[in-house]
Amino acid sequence: MRIGLDIGGTKTDAVAVDATGAIVRRLRLPTGWGPDAVIRTLLKAVRTLGAEAAAHGPIESVGIGIPGQVEPGTSRVVHAVNLGVEELDLVAAVGPRLGVAVRVENDVKAAAFGAYALQTVSSGSALGASGSMAYLNLGTGVAAGIVADGELWRGVRGTAGEVGHISIDPHGPLCRCGQRGCIEAFAGGGAIAERWGRNGPIAERWGRSGALPVRDVFDAADSGEPIARDLRAGLARGVAAAVRILVLTADVDVVVLGGGVSGLGARLLTDVSAELAASAEASPFMRSLRLERRVQLLPAGSPAAALGAALVGAPRAGAEGTRAHG
Amino acid sequence: MRIGLDIGGTKTDAVAVDATGAIVRRLRLPTGWGPDAVIRTLLKAVRTLGAEAAAHGPIESVGIGIPGQVEPGTSRVVHAVNLGVEELDLVAAVGPRLGVAVRVENDVKAAAFGAYALQTVSSGSALGASGSMAYLNLGTGVAAGIVADGELWRGVRGTAGEVGHISIDPHGPLCRCGQRGCIEAFAGGGAIAERWGRNGPIAERWGRSGALPVRDVFDAADSGEPIARDLRAGLARGVAAAVRILVLTADVDVVVLGGGVSGLGARLLTDVSAELAASAEASPFMRSLRLERRVQLLPAGSPAAALGAALVGAPRAGAEGTRAHG
Repeated sequence: MRIGLDIGGTKTDAVAVDATGAIVRRLRLPTGWGPDAVIRTLLKAVRTLGAEAAAHGPIESVGIGIPGQVEPGTSRVVHAVNLGVEELDLVAAVGPRLGVAVRVENDVKAAAFGAYALQTVSSGSALGASGSMAYLNLGTGVAAGIVADGELWRGVRGTAGEVGHISIDPHGPLCRCGQRGCIEAFAGGGAIAERWGRNGPIAERWGRSGALPVRDVFDAADSGEPIARDLRAGLARGVAAAVRILVLTADVDVVVLGGGVSGLGARLLTDVSAELAASAEASPFMRSLRLERRVQLLPAGSPAAALGAALVGAPRAGAEGTRAHG
Repeated sequence: MRIGLDIGGTKTDAVAVDATGAIVRRLRLPTGWGPDAVIRTLLKAVRTLGAEAAAHGPIESVGIGIPGQVEPGTSRVVHAVNLGVEELDLVAAVGPRLGVAVRVENDVKAAAFGAYALQTVSSGSALGASGSMAYLNLGTGVAAGIVADGELWRGVRGTAGEVGHISIDPHGPLCRCGQRGCIEAFAGGGAIAERWGRNGPIAERWGRSGALPVRDVFDAADSGEPIARDLRAGLARGVAAAVRILVLTADVDVVVLGGGVSGLGARLLTDVSAELAASAEASPFMRSLRLERRVQLLPAGSPAAALGAALVGAPRAGAEGTRAHG
């Protein structure tokens, strides 16, 4: 069997996958802070799943999805700030102790490959079949992963899909990256929460300080609070722009929305579809792309990232695997 | 040998390529108007080159680059408006008469593959080596072709790289596509010429009505004419935005500028590099990409499109060839 892990800032999601690519076991553990805790957590997850799913044979490979930059062709992770990891070579750290092939992948790219796998499996077509999809992760920041012709597409520096810092409005909000009107400044959970939080009294009045501040923003917007309505409209605008850029540049079939902000579910999807439809009103060309019909939501609690990590980590991933070390 | 053709609105550029991928003969013919004229021109070009370069062996394949939409996996060209061709299956039309493998490719994608080939050859690395490049065509409209890991990347509908209709400013100029602030509305030769032409007296005063109206705009801008300065700044802004989108989304190494407007040469490159450098001033992330150093100009009169058509048309194009019919 293969094991895949999605190491998140608070929890680690782990799955055991059988030879057919089906998930036979799933496990969630709290992720500690810093390199040692991260390593302890992932070793524990692998060993637990290895024991619990022993009936599916020995562990062939371990794939790790991690929220940091993974240098192409290496297993070195840098800037995994949410984990308290500045730099870490995971293969060197756990490979010897696990004694199996270990592969490391950026978590958004892993989720993209997993979302693609779930889709091709659910649609009955074989994994790796010619098909293209983008996965747009709406978390604190905004980034996408692209699967083209059944292969995860990394680009020359492993940063393909970094649409978050493309400016869509020279007069838009200032982005933490220093530019104005970046997609992330409109649609990043961090940017929205920060701008919402800044308005103290209003935030007090509406604040239910949930794990997802953006939910408060949507509720406040429903009640007519002007700043919240503004932020909510900006979110739809930013996501719609990312969808257009991904479809026009990468010519993917569908764009799947995931990440914390996608927990808004139908409320988000409705806003984004409406924005895409409205903005295409004036343009026969854009209308012909029917973008509003090509945006999908990753189901809440989907194991996409862990599954993707398991499949990306598998020698059987073939072309994709070789491409990874190309 | 292989033959490649770039069928343009006014002239057809044709090259004969030997087994090493080197151009051994080049020919230019005026392109007629309408399907019959296009077919006559390309048959004449193929036969002439076949005779002139006979020393390099019989013709193995013919690749055709054409300014229209080529449906993936087919040889049907649609909307080749500059040629007076609404729909045409070129393989069906000339294949039997030529008796060799014929492949059809959108001209911008052919130019992208040719520019990549010229670059990999000049840099000594083998064609098909892992490397990624975008070719941004600045003609009447704006569109790009992307070569990823040595393969021409088409996307699901063969429209990958269509960055021209991505909006970068909700308050920007109206685009012929119906949207506002599209990259093409800022950087398309057609849009610039139209907005310049509209200002009758000014156009009169500065107009030298060259084959490239954008050159007049640059000259007028040099002399301080405000509308011309505005249009010139917009061109740099649009091209810079396209470069950012191509690098961030596709993570390509370099972006090569080609097409009629690139005939401005150093004047265009200087403006674009300055815009990229200036806009990155406030953003450490954007500065780290050093975009201004990754923009290049396709040399004037480059045979990139015809060469690319020849190579795309070659069975030897391997993975790329199979991908084309995938």
